[in-house]
Amino acid sequence: MHLAAFFSAGPVSGHHGGWRYPGADLSLLSSGYYQRIGRLLEQGRFDMVFCADILAVPDRYEGSRTSQLEYGSLGALRLDPMLVLTAIATATDRLGLACTVSTSYQDPFTVARAFATLDHLSAGRAAWNVVTSFQDAEARNFGREQQNPRERRYDRADEFLEVVCKLWDSWQDDALVIDPRSPRFADPAKVSAIDHDGEWFRVRGPLNVSRPPQGRPVLVQAGASNRGKDFAARWADVVFTTPPTLESGQAFYRELRERAASFGRDPNALKILPGIVPVIGETEAAAAEKQRLLAELVHPLAGLSTLSYHLDIDLSEFPLDQPLPTVDVPGVHGHYLEVAELTQREGLTLEQLGKRYGSGPNSAFIGTAEQVAATMADWFAGEACDGFMIQGTHAPGGYEDVVRLLVPELTRLGIFRSEYDGPTLRDQLGIARPAAGDWPGGRTFEPVSGAS
Amino acid sequence: MHLAAFFSAGPVSGHHGGWRYPGADLSLLSSGYYQRIGRLLEQGRFDMVFCADILAVPDRYEGSRTSQLEYGSLGALRLDPMLVLTAIATATDRLGLACTVSTSYQDPFTVARAFATLDHLSAGRAAWNVVTSFQDAEARNFGREQQNPRERRYDRADEFLEVVCKLWDSWQDDALVIDPRSPRFADPAKVSAIDHDGEWFRVRGPLNVSRPPQGRPVLVQAGASNRGKDFAARWADVVFTTPPTLESGQAFYRELRERAASFGRDPNALKILPGIVPVIGETEAAAAEKQRLLAELVHPLAGLSTLSYHLDIDLSEFPLDQPLPTVDVPGVHGHYLEVAELTQREGLTLEQLGKRYGSGPNSAFIGTAEQVAATMADWFAGEACDGFMIQGTHAPGGYEDVVRLLVPELTRLGIFRSEYDGPTLRDQLGIARPAAGDWPGGRTFEPVSGAS
Repeated sequence: MHLAAFFSAGPVSGHHGGWRYPGADLSLLSSGYYQRIGRLLEQGRFDMVFCADILAVPDRYEGSRTSQLEYGSLGALRLDPMLVLTAIATATDRLGLACTVSTSYQDPFTVARAFATLDHLSAGRAAWNVVTSFQDAEARNFGREQQNPRERRYDRADEFLEVVCKLWDSWQDDALVIDPRSPRFADPAKVSAIDHDGEWFRVRGPLNVSRPPQGRPVLVQAGASNRGKDFAARWADVVFTTPPTLESGQAFYRELRERAASFGRDPNALKILPGIVPVIGETEAAAAEKQRLLAELVHPLAGLSTLSYHLDIDLSEFPLDQPLPTVDVPGVHGHYLEVAELTQREGLTLEQLGKRYGSGPNSAFIGTAEQVAATMADWFAGEACDGFMIQGTHAPGGYEDVVRLLVPELTRLGIFRSEYDGPTLRDQLGIARPAAGDWPGGRTFEPVSGAS
Repeated sequence: MHLAAFFSAGPVSGHHGGWRYPGADLSLLSSGYYQRIGRLLEQGRFDMVFCADILAVPDRYEGSRTSQLEYGSLGALRLDPMLVLTAIATATDRLGLACTVSTSYQDPFTVARAFATLDHLSAGRAAWNVVTSFQDAEARNFGREQQNPRERRYDRADEFLEVVCKLWDSWQDDALVIDPRSPRFADPAKVSAIDHDGEWFRVRGPLNVSRPPQGRPVLVQAGASNRGKDFAARWADVVFTTPPTLESGQAFYRELRERAASFGRDPNALKILPGIVPVIGETEAAAAEKQRLLAELVHPLAGLSTLSYHLDIDLSEFPLDQPLPTVDVPGVHGHYLEVAELTQREGLTLEQLGKRYGSGPNSAFIGTAEQVAATMADWFAGEACDGFMIQGTHAPGGYEDVVRLLVPELTRLGIFRSEYDGPTLRDQLGIARPAAGDWPGGRTFEPVSGAS
């Protein structure tokens, strides 16, 4: 079983009430805060920390940023995650380091170089969560009135990934020599232009960083739309998903593995991790009381503000005392399926839904460590996942509960590692280091030779 | 006197023979390497480390990257400097952290956010060296055949700086509240859109990071063209320059301070730092022997390859056994003035010039610590500078010589600090923290209020 820890360099990682929880560490602007979290996760032998990101303070609820800022909602503040991961890298030795970077508002050269650098500085622990971004608020910070439609964003993302993979492969593994005597710093015959000329990008290359230790940093994706699932099936090593039930988790798991196979990939090379927000107590009653307190601390508008942003719909147009009606969702499909199912199953009003949505993606993981571990084991054995993306209720307490109580139980059950598998993130995930030119989806790329 | 250390996350920081010097640390891909350099510089009470950058392996000499890669020339390899600085930040407490980021190939939102993050994570030590980039090889990694002409690059840079300053000011100093009881995470009335709509950029804002601890990270610039000097005079807190003699240093110092005054600024708020590559020995003979060995280790084509890149001219077109003729230089003016003066004064052939250029910008700083400190004191007292940008001959040895031998001598002379002046880089430099809206050049900016 693989464990990743969802973490944001802002107020909310798993639970919108978390930053208000007694004892929560609120030094969100200090590197020490992130390093302490990283060391804790490494103590729990997590595969990786996953630092989510967005490029604007969302303004979808009431067309205003007020609900985000006032209630410390999901997008109120976000430090640059590449720098946060670098700080964590220097405080840890084995923990994988994943973060979100959008393909819509940067250039492939910049992104390829940043992740290659992180992979070098961390000795092989970098991972990139590829997103296409879905907020107009983000587009408006980058010279556009509106984002591109989803299909076009994914067209760009596909080509973006091609270019980035070519750049990572533009230095052969043994190109960097550093022999002071010859002198030969690098072998010019092993560093090649890529001469990419596509619809979205023209990039000559080579990268000015040698090939990353992992060959290719690990690729993470979370697409839930049809196109998003194809993108994940083609490119991703790890898929993050938020199924509300075991059954929906099993359906997604089966479907995505089939899609991966249709791209000529070994489905076992794709690791699917549902997000959960475990609430763990020393006793069942202690867990229930934690859960009660957390729910009390979520302002309903905090959750609705984030849901508005995720769905890309202004939910302030609907009455708070009525259930969410059926709506067309321009934003994240997966999140809509989640809340539509929840609304139907429990008959929640919009206000109640706000509190529930603000509590994280799933409520089946509450109890003692034994109970939560047993539920996780059921999902794992039931082919609903390869592990979990654990979102802490609050920091550091929520992650401490997981590391001190839950992880030992998972290890006792024999479904989680008792020590790290190797030095790189690929070693923890059990996925091979790709040779240069060996791409996801079975495609290959021949570097442009000569003229170095 | 202020001291910065020029350092590159690649083979050459000051001297092209440095990576071949006995005992040079060649672990250029590890975070520990950069952290050790950072701790050493902090031990020497340096104001800041300055991490230079370029966005392509240069190919100006012979239209090929071979000379750069083979001889480990200036641009053979470069890690992303923001990540390198973050690694250094976590290993130090007082050292300022400057790096180069181009205004030509990124968006202002991305750059403002990255430096705001670095300033937070380092508790007020970030600095940005603003460059416009001058290589077609860089343009070709970002979708263009050619770079923009210099005037247009600076037009874009001026507007880029405006946008970035607006974004840093988009959160008032007390906007971030983090009060779990209210709850109030941030005060929405103190976070404002910037609604910038200019020739090059449309950016709505606000930034999704609160105001940096320094208000505005320190701005560094190195323009030597007429437009470049105006840009520096208007925006920069620190100017990096490479005058080949005391007299040219004095002329530049006088001129730039006058230009700053013409923009309504206090010239004393502008710190001008000439680059030097001190070669320091326990005795004069030891220094001379170091210098001889370093010169032996510079391959002439390593230096010419970098000079070709700096001047943006293919120097392979000229005979190696003749002096460099008078040429039109599309690249860096300052470097051309430097080598033209050198060629004329010493009658060097192009091959000799390659070796000399590969040895760094100035040869007046060779000898015992007492001798070098005396020369530095002369420049400082002679109003040629406010301090120096020290380029190590090799790493860590060249920086160790400076910290162990030269710095104590400067302190003994009473011209360099014996302890750090305060927690932030602005404290070391003795420049005030700007209020929101208080811009360089005396201009002010009113944030767009309301509708947060």
